[in-house]
Amino acid sequence: MGDMKRLLFLMMVFGCVAAARAQVHTEAVEYKDGDTVLEGYLAYDDAIIKGKRPGVLVVHQWKGLGDYEKKRAEMLAMLGYNVFCVDIYGKGIRPQDPKSAGALASKYKSNRELLRERVNAGLEVLKKHELTDPKRVAAIGYCFGGTAVIELARSGADVAGVVSFHGGLDSPRSEDGKNIHCKVLALHGADDPNVSNRELAAFEDEMRHAKVDWQLIKFGGAVHAFTQWDAGNDNSKGVAYNEKADKRSWEYMKLFFGEIFH
Amino acid sequence: MGDMKRLLFLMMVFGCVAAARAQVHTEAVEYKDGDTVLEGYLAYDDAIIKGKRPGVLVVHQWKGLGDYEKKRAEMLAMLGYNVFCVDIYGKGIRPQDPKSAGALASKYKSNRELLRERVNAGLEVLKKHELTDPKRVAAIGYCFGGTAVIELARSGADVAGVVSFHGGLDSPRSEDGKNIHCKVLALHGADDPNVSNRELAAFEDEMRHAKVDWQLIKFGGAVHAFTQWDAGNDNSKGVAYNEKADKRSWEYMKLFFGEIFH
Repeated sequence: MGDMKRLLFLMMVFGCVAAARAQVHTEAVEYKDGDTVLEGYLAYDDAIIKGKRPGVLVVHQWKGLGDYEKKRAEMLAMLGYNVFCVDIYGKGIRPQDPKSAGALASKYKSNRELLRERVNAGLEVLKKHELTDPKRVAAIGYCFGGTAVIELARSGADVAGVVSFHGGLDSPRSEDGKNIHCKVLALHGADDPNVSNRELAAFEDEMRHAKVDWQLIKFGGAVHAFTQWDAGNDNSKGVAYNEKADKRSWEYMKLFFGEIFH
Repeated sequence: MGDMKRLLFLMMVFGCVAAARAQVHTEAVEYKDGDTVLEGYLAYDDAIIKGKRPGVLVVHQWKGLGDYEKKRAEMLAMLGYNVFCVDIYGKGIRPQDPKSAGALASKYKSNRELLRERVNAGLEVLKKHELTDPKRVAAIGYCFGGTAVIELARSGADVAGVVSFHGGLDSPRSEDGKNIHCKVLALHGADDPNVSNRELAAFEDEMRHAKVDWQLIKFGGAVHAFTQWDAGNDNSKGVAYNEKADKRSWEYMKLFFGEIFH
């Protein structure tokens, strides 16, 4: 890339200009996986950037697609991406209490085929959208969604990369690592009680044996859900927001996108 | 930061403009630690940037200060920093064969007080230099030098941050972690045979218990010396260059500097 082109690219990626002038269009998008009706959320800038652009799929946390994921989608749209939040659970299924949310997340975590199918259904919507450059698509996910995007990679999906934010990293079939042909970035709270050292080691071994292009970043002092603004700040609960880890992980994600969407 | 200021900062940090026009001044600098004569290497841009700027200390590998560290210093100077490569071993002491290099590295690794003294002697030179803003100083090191910069942090040195590239992370006195009051970034090859899982875990525990602001980044597929251009590409030797891990770790370092030198 020439200096000027590179500079313009950086200005876009780092949002110096876009942040000041971008206008984000958002809309709910109904789609289906077989007979199941799903409702995702689309976000893109329609002021500065014209035409096709890289696409980013966002997979939600255990309570289903909500305000948190929509806000992240808008932040990504401001960076110049065409963004689609998938709906794993189904239209209107948005469990608000931990018990129901946990039960639903478990349902999909214990049925990886179904989880893969649902993430891929969302990926199809994003790839077919007129503003998406289908050769430059990535997926990110938070907590439950982090597990989901790594599972998307394990399904052999044709994406450039996946980013897990404090996701569970376990796999019931570690041999599926061999299906991964995208880059993997796992962003992990070093004090996350939801991911045991054994699970971490198994994840690393899976990536290693399958010769995946992977990176794992550990954030000191961060527990589960470190990017979740409303998770409080009491690390002793095992779930807390951590501003440093949140901001750093976002920057690392942007660098990763800069690399895979070059 | 305002948008324009932020943009100019990014332009500097990412070297879009500086890389095209910077002129790097370099010189050997003789200095002392007690009666021991040392010879470091200074590098800074004298074309674009005027006056004081953040300082970066560079600590060499096991063979002592050589062409590799000088090249890194020039790369850092192009990014706008005032850079000083320390000399731990002494003027003219540059062991070229692995046996002598290993013996010297071991001498300092087994005498952490002396190692700290030598790194701090270099830090003083950098901090007192007229082009250094002494409140914005970091240290980076490669292999042996990675160990050295973490030891610098453990000495309680007043620096904003330290970055270890494939350094050994062990400490003979883990309680010294409590002296650390700078940010720590450890860049690590996930297949580095020189650092055992036990050593990694002990490092994490040291950082955790001392409540250090730390991050550890693991690069999949990378072994020891992954940034060392002339280390070959045979991972089975346990020492090899890895272009992806090299470039990514450099970008992570730049982000880290962007944060600590804000």
